[in-house]
Amino acid sequence: MSILVVGSAALDSVETPTGRVENALGGSAIYFSTAASFFTESIRMVAVVGDDFPQEHVAFLESRRINIEGLERVEGGRTFRWGGRYTDDLNSASTLFTDLNVYGDFQPKLPEPYRDTPYVFLANINPELQLNVLEQVNRPKLVVCDTMNLWINTSRVALMQTLEKVDILILNDSEARLLTGEDNLISAAKKILTCGPSRVIVKKGEHGAISLTETTFFSAPAHPLESVCDPTGAGDSFAGGFLGHVASVGNTAEETIRQAIIYGTIVASFNVEDFSLERQRILKRAEIDRRYEELRESTRY
Amino acid sequence: MSILVVGSAALDSVETPTGRVENALGGSAIYFSTAASFFTESIRMVAVVGDDFPQEHVAFLESRRINIEGLERVEGGRTFRWGGRYTDDLNSASTLFTDLNVYGDFQPKLPEPYRDTPYVFLANINPELQLNVLEQVNRPKLVVCDTMNLWINTSRVALMQTLEKVDILILNDSEARLLTGEDNLISAAKKILTCGPSRVIVKKGEHGAISLTETTFFSAPAHPLESVCDPTGAGDSFAGGFLGHVASVGNTAEETIRQAIIYGTIVASFNVEDFSLERQRILKRAEIDRRYEELRESTRY
Repeated sequence: MSILVVGSAALDSVETPTGRVENALGGSAIYFSTAASFFTESIRMVAVVGDDFPQEHVAFLESRRINIEGLERVEGGRTFRWGGRYTDDLNSASTLFTDLNVYGDFQPKLPEPYRDTPYVFLANINPELQLNVLEQVNRPKLVVCDTMNLWINTSRVALMQTLEKVDILILNDSEARLLTGEDNLISAAKKILTCGPSRVIVKKGEHGAISLTETTFFSAPAHPLESVCDPTGAGDSFAGGFLGHVASVGNTAEETIRQAIIYGTIVASFNVEDFSLERQRILKRAEIDRRYEELRESTRY
Repeated sequence: MSILVVGSAALDSVETPTGRVENALGGSAIYFSTAASFFTESIRMVAVVGDDFPQEHVAFLESRRINIEGLERVEGGRTFRWGGRYTDDLNSASTLFTDLNVYGDFQPKLPEPYRDTPYVFLANINPELQLNVLEQVNRPKLVVCDTMNLWINTSRVALMQTLEKVDILILNDSEARLLTGEDNLISAAKKILTCGPSRVIVKKGEHGAISLTETTFFSAPAHPLESVCDPTGAGDSFAGGFLGHVASVGNTAEETIRQAIIYGTIVASFNVEDFSLERQRILKRAEIDRRYEELRESTRY
């Protein structure tokens, strides 16, 4: 079944201890869609770029059969650019610059055929825009939402309004603590369940992820990585693998969700092995499935 | 099969955000033996106390059928006392006082019948004493060792000599990083495998534990705890549950080890629910088994 993603398209300049790239393809909607494209074919992307957005990137998205009717191209505008540096702690980037450009005026407009998409991913954008997107869709089957510390700190009211309308919130451990004021992650997750989402998924980097509903608890392992090249896009790749699998199965049973969390974990683990989307460009579905079995073996007892 | 543990017996005074205790039963050998006693009956303890060590504690150990022939009682001496305070971060204690007393002159002497014990746990004592213990045992089947930042910082040479002679090192994440200088835990664990142990188990608190050998990787979940009363003794309770199960099964197959890590996780999760050994005093084997099934369910996919 189809997936709608609304997020950013960007040209990223990233430095890590192992190297650097400039103006490389990035953005939450791009990472998400590419990751989801390993699992399902009908992905509808809403994002905005300037007329400087390289045609080769458009061609790449089309090669993944991602529907880009909703990829707005602003003539005379420049694409969102982000520059960041990761030092030895690859868990958090220092932002070197943020040139919002056309992304600063982003007003998501869903093409008419997108309005009936059953699976919706609200990537990490201003929660007011997330609310706006939800007003444009017709009773989706599942709404999954991401957020970040910026919105928790600056747009809490709108964020809480958004949360009332989403089914699953995906966020990382520090965001869960910041959002709830709870240091204990189980307590933080339970508090989030009182704000609207019926499920919360907390990503813990090298420690895997946990998923809670009112009645279920799932602990997902991390793929054991010794080195990370570039963590940019890991969260969106996780979400893409996750929702891609859910949409391909077509239900939200606990079993499906658990498998989807593992698939999300795996696509993210591949994504961080190289800069930008380089690893995903050459990734094969068989590699995903092999790592899925390895991960299963690593938790069996 | 029998287990030998060499470690401390102590009277602990502990403050946490939820309460405090004074001169409560503690010490690595005590926590370990109690935890192991849920799984196996033949536990041989070597430790030292003063003549102020309350008879009720001796009676408690005897009630768990722990062999205390090796519990040395120094007439006119005082028992080791430790005082610590946990603030909101329950992962690390501030030491308020350390009165080594008779423990300061501890020279482990194994009673003759202990020398042939197949399973040996070297609790967190000076690595020179750990080496000394290994000289007193006859070809044990399995030697498991614990350590801490104090010995890593002050007795690294002796610690490395000990590691050459142990089969399994159990330590926590910060200790693994300190010992190896590796920030990545997988890299840290692999480095430890080059120092002697054929297996390393890294405890990660709320994130569970990982176990590595040259050819295997196991990721164990944590029991999802919302509140911790007192973390004192969690590591030794983990080790006790772990080795207790291994000794009860009588082999060190990967399957046995994995189950043992889960049992260790569970006994530790109970131990932190109350001060000192209070929770273990009333714990039933059926409760352990119930939590074992819950944990299995929380990782199933």
